[in-house]
Amino acid sequence: MTTPTLLVLDADPLPRLGRLTGRARIEHADASTLAERLPYADVLLVWDFTSHAVREAWPGDGPRPRWVHTASAGVDHLMCPELAASDTVVTNARGVFDQPIAEYVAALVLAMAKDLPRTLQLQRERTWRHRESQKVTGTRAVVVGSGPIGRAIARTLKALGVITALVGRTPRTGIHGPDDLDRLMSRADWVIAAAPLTEQTRGMFDARRFGVMQPSARFVNVGRGPLVVEDALAEALAKRWIAGAALDVFDAEPLPPDSPLWQVPNLIVSPHMSGDTAGWRDELGAQFVELYEAWDAGRPLPNVVDKQRGYVPGH
Amino acid sequence: MTTPTLLVLDADPLPRLGRLTGRARIEHADASTLAERLPYADVLLVWDFTSHAVREAWPGDGPRPRWVHTASAGVDHLMCPELAASDTVVTNARGVFDQPIAEYVAALVLAMAKDLPRTLQLQRERTWRHRESQKVTGTRAVVVGSGPIGRAIARTLKALGVITALVGRTPRTGIHGPDDLDRLMSRADWVIAAAPLTEQTRGMFDARRFGVMQPSARFVNVGRGPLVVEDALAEALAKRWIAGAALDVFDAEPLPPDSPLWQVPNLIVSPHMSGDTAGWRDELGAQFVELYEAWDAGRPLPNVVDKQRGYVPGH
Repeated sequence: MTTPTLLVLDADPLPRLGRLTGRARIEHADASTLAERLPYADVLLVWDFTSHAVREAWPGDGPRPRWVHTASAGVDHLMCPELAASDTVVTNARGVFDQPIAEYVAALVLAMAKDLPRTLQLQRERTWRHRESQKVTGTRAVVVGSGPIGRAIARTLKALGVITALVGRTPRTGIHGPDDLDRLMSRADWVIAAAPLTEQTRGMFDARRFGVMQPSARFVNVGRGPLVVEDALAEALAKRWIAGAALDVFDAEPLPPDSPLWQVPNLIVSPHMSGDTAGWRDELGAQFVELYEAWDAGRPLPNVVDKQRGYVPGH
Repeated sequence: MTTPTLLVLDADPLPRLGRLTGRARIEHADASTLAERLPYADVLLVWDFTSHAVREAWPGDGPRPRWVHTASAGVDHLMCPELAASDTVVTNARGVFDQPIAEYVAALVLAMAKDLPRTLQLQRERTWRHRESQKVTGTRAVVVGSGPIGRAIARTLKALGVITALVGRTPRTGIHGPDDLDRLMSRADWVIAAAPLTEQTRGMFDARRFGVMQPSARFVNVGRGPLVVEDALAEALAKRWIAGAALDVFDAEPLPPDSPLWQVPNLIVSPHMSGDTAGWRDELGAQFVELYEAWDAGRPLPNVVDKQRGYVPGH
């Protein structure tokens, strides 16, 4: 038996891979070398979720890895028709980001309810200005995305007393279908986008949908940038159709310094960090090692992505 | 039977008092007229918790109201030896601020864990800088103050997965006594001050206590300013003995524009607003009307303050 070749896309070595010594021949590639290395890899580990290198290199000639794992929740950066049509199994980092992202959303919701950005602004101006803020208990949220991240967000908001509805692709017990979205959004104080990026979800938060929201409501995106029509959100905020928003993900990342989004009123911009709490690289490394051990022993892999749908179909 | 005279300290009329028409003769006083009006009042309603007018006017000559209600949780602004020694009953606004303050503390804890102030700073600079943040689940908090506000804070932090200990004046089931405070503080990631201001609690958070805390820990005060030795906190932050703090209450309120506290590194300054969510005046007014109806009908009053201890002794 030959030792499988594990090709790691990215210069940064992932922590914990040392545990695979003797069980994997670990090689590294970057965007410029991926195409030539791909035919010689049994397994591809994708670390950099901002790179489109896999999507670009995959359609080339020669054999392809039997398994691709991405150290991210979303798979939109690597999927292409050729990979979708192939026998290659794709897995993701399901689970690692759930609780951190749920806490991040809670932080944004509470910061907006308590007017914290304005408090920090007034502090810089050495100005004492008492304001009334908002109670979060008893407000209504709709979380779009019913995977483990969306469910963790819903759980955390409920723990804070927020009346929370979940919307997924398919209605089932406790989860609304897309047909309910407009009605739920029109009554919500908080709309949280946490869906995977697929052809169904791309651009789903557009001018019409922001128009459905209450003027007092706020919007948060921790899914993928292209879920949102950014210009439409900027306009909805500038015209006060809605009261505020927070984006952690963007069409273009890093967000360029000259993007108008940095200065849209009542918009919080953060650098795709919602899931990345201290120790996250370690957790992703440990999770991959566990999957590799299952794969190497011929056991079934968890976290297998439905390549047509673009996410791990779930409970 | 004559209609009782209800003296309201403060120019702003409290909402909901209209319901007492015919059952109370409502008069208003301010700091300059309180002393002369006090002998003619049956009931005194204190709205402005920043004023020391009651403490100053109370020791004068003549009869005194049989009941004083303050539309605040703390009573430190009105207590004086003469009031404490009198037969006058003192009640407070127990209950109204619990959930709002608990949410405010959660907002501060999450904002600090997720490095939100720095994110807003970087946004102003149009700078995309990914950082790792901290998970809140599994961290440790100690909440000092075991009244309804402290207990609401503990409940809310626990709902976010924080391992939370409560410290009160008297140890009892589920509540630690003051002897445990240093040990709990030395292991805590979050120290939350939510105690009433009494002779026992004044200055309890001093240089020694900040020295006990972990360098990664953070401190929040939503109780009363003088619980904290402000200079000692500023020094602890400047010298990085602790990682951060948030103060909503201060020795002097409003905090003067030339206070050095506005610019202490890693300190969030807010204008005593933690309990004041939209509708709070209404709730305070409705609560007083309910108490007045009980008093007028000769029923026992809830929320009676132990004037020696300086708070409503509790469960």
